[in-house]
Amino acid sequence: MTQLEASRFSKQFSLVTPIALAPMALASGGALAAACARAGALGLVGGGYGDLDWTQREYRLALQAAASQRIGIGFITWKLDEDASALDWVLDLPAEERPRAVMLSFGDARRYAARIAASGAPLICQIQRLEQAKQALEAGAQVLVAQGAEAGGHGMNGLDGRSTLTLVPELADWLASKAPETLLLAAGGIADGRGLAAALTLGADGALLGTRFWATQESLAPLGAKQAALTAGGDGTARSAVFDILRRKHWPTPYDFRALRNDLHRSWEGRVDALRAAPEAARASYDAGVQAGDYSRAHATVGEAIGLVHDLPEAGALVKRLHAQAQAALGG
Amino acid sequence: MTQLEASRFSKQFSLVTPIALAPMALASGGALAAACARAGALGLVGGGYGDLDWTQREYRLALQAAASQRIGIGFITWKLDEDASALDWVLDLPAEERPRAVMLSFGDARRYAARIAASGAPLICQIQRLEQAKQALEAGAQVLVAQGAEAGGHGMNGLDGRSTLTLVPELADWLASKAPETLLLAAGGIADGRGLAAALTLGADGALLGTRFWATQESLAPLGAKQAALTAGGDGTARSAVFDILRRKHWPTPYDFRALRNDLHRSWEGRVDALRAAPEAARASYDAGVQAGDYSRAHATVGEAIGLVHDLPEAGALVKRLHAQAQAALGG
Ligand SMILES: Cc1cc2nc3c(=O)[nH]c(=O)nc-3n(C[C@H](O)[C@H](O)[C@H](O)COP(=O)(O)O)c2cc1C
Ligand SMILES: Cc1cc2nc3c(=O)[nH]c(=O)nc-3n(C[C@H](O)[C@H](O)[C@H](O)COP(=O)(O)O)c2cc1C
Repeated sequence: MTQLEASRFSKQFSLVTPIALAPMALASGGALAAACARAGALGLVGGGYGDLDWTQREYRLALQAAASQRIGIGFITWKLDEDASALDWVLDLPAEERPRAVMLSFGDARRYAARIAASGAPLICQIQRLEQAKQALEAGAQVLVAQGAEAGGHGMNGLDGRSTLTLVPELADWLASKAPETLLLAAGGIADGRGLAAALTLGADGALLGTRFWATQESLAPLGAKQAALTAGGDGTARSAVFDILRRKHWPTPYDFRALRNDLHRSWEGRVDALRAAPEAARASYDAGVQAGDYSRAHATVGEAIGLVHDLPEAGALVKRLHAQAQAALGG
Repeated sequence: MTQLEASRFSKQFSLVTPIALAPMALASGGALAAACARAGALGLVGGGYGDLDWTQREYRLALQAAASQRIGIGFITWKLDEDASALDWVLDLPAEERPRAVMLSFGDARRYAARIAASGAPLICQIQRLEQAKQALEAGAQVLVAQGAEAGGHGMNGLDGRSTLTLVPELADWLASKAPETLLLAAGGIADGRGLAAALTLGADGALLGTRFWATQESLAPLGAKQAALTAGGDGTARSAVFDILRRKHWPTPYDFRALRNDLHRSWEGRVDALRAAPEAARASYDAGVQAGDYSRAHATVGEAIGLVHDLPEAGALVKRLHAQAQAALGG
């Protein structure tokens, strides 16, 4: 058995490769989750903001295509506080159709602990700072995802954010003394086998990847966004509240959003307060950009790891490639 | 020969362990640099802002204590543009006393390229974004240091900053195709053998460590600052312009500064423009804090990696510990 198969994450979730597909809202649909699952990774459907129709359709698709194996789902916690019907739906499915894991991010997971535990699904909590670990354990998390600020999508803002490279070993040490049975995944900045191998070396049991899977055939992200992102390097993303304001998403502090730093972002990133106070004109430009598939105005949600992404492979082949690369990097 | 001794950085600089002491202004004095050098790492004296007296004293101390072996020096590039007398002094020493490496960070190294090349010292350039690599190669850099925003001290600000975890492999790939003979060190967030091993796994030839060596016996940082930092975790630092304004340092954009996020920092971090416009009262409080050794107001310069630091060892013993830990993490 290789180091990858021997990881605690692989063993507990019956994986070949200790990788989870990040539950990316609107990108991690059923086809992507199923492709990851079939290739031996954990496929988390992107329940995101908890849209019931979308969740039902994509989750069923994943179950069918992966024969119920290695399929889970993730939600944005603070949004569940407004409407948890999609979570309730998935937890109330017949036992054999229930998720193999439920992941919650960005908020207090404790109020959903009892329902999730009752369903039998292991809880995965994504956190951004060490100080959030205690609350996640109180919610019954069996897996913590340590998400660094280099990650694509939402994460902790500039002043509060941690990097994956420091958060993972510090949290590994903390868990070793407080909750040694809890698993740890690294997230943020990992897009090839070197990154996966580094995550294991730092003390993680595996890694959760968003950006890398966003840029696959099966990802539901618009093709124009994927093509725009492929021309960018890691220097070309930034983290701010700009796109959340433009998209009318009311994200609570201290979270903001990393995406390609396009022209519209650049024109507002230095005056976020002004944008918040009078967003109308910028929103019109943004909406027109989305309409036209113009990624100098519309957002493309990727993290710094986009600099390591140079193709749009099928997700299953990608999982196998990541496995082989990590194996080589680990000297196996 | 182990993987650590076989690294290109170890070989080219006659090191036992592929680690460089960061040239930390006012912390990396002669005793610290010499202790690192004697233990088998590259000891870079912190020439910092280029104070001639300080540089002469500490560099001579390092040479004596390390018998001229593995001693180099680093300077802040934009400050040399105002006064390069300390650089000129060190380059004009008799050949056997000249630095084994000169490191330049934060500015355009090209105008110093000819002088440094003439002295025979290899040039090390620290960069924060991939787009800076070309200029560093034009300056004749034989080693690039990829510094992530998790680093202690100065680095790239929140919008522009990269993380070590993504910058290192992306730059490794870039160098492999453009300048394969150029070495690469990872900096920012590395404070134990897991981090060093991860850096090598990501494609670096070694690592440059600041925060970890700042917290040693030989470091010239105030003991009170070291003790204050030891009680902090990685959640407890932040990057901003606050302390540069308080210290009357006129750093150019896009650089700012990571240090412990103390009470005085918290009270200004949300209104940096106001602080810049009227800094007097806050400066008085800061100055009083420095005077009193009160680190709720004075700054303690550490990065996120402080969460991995739990002691104040002698630097030589620390190098050996890092070596053993990295060896174990690499499975050797
Ligand atoms: C397009 C995209 C959408 C995302 N949506 C979500 C989400 O709905 N819920 C969530 O927990 N995380 C979301 N994330 C963050 C991921 O869970 C993960 O932390 C991140 O992708 C890891 O960093 P990486 O992008 O560098 O791999 C998203 C990330 C991306 C790139
Ligand atoms: C106390 C302190 C002072 C520093 N001073 C300098 C400096 O004068 N010149 C420089 O190039 N880098 C300086 N740095 C940055 C280091 O070169 C290096 O990038 C950083 O320490 C690496 O991150 P780490 O602190 O997580 O190890 C300093 C860092 C610290 C912690």
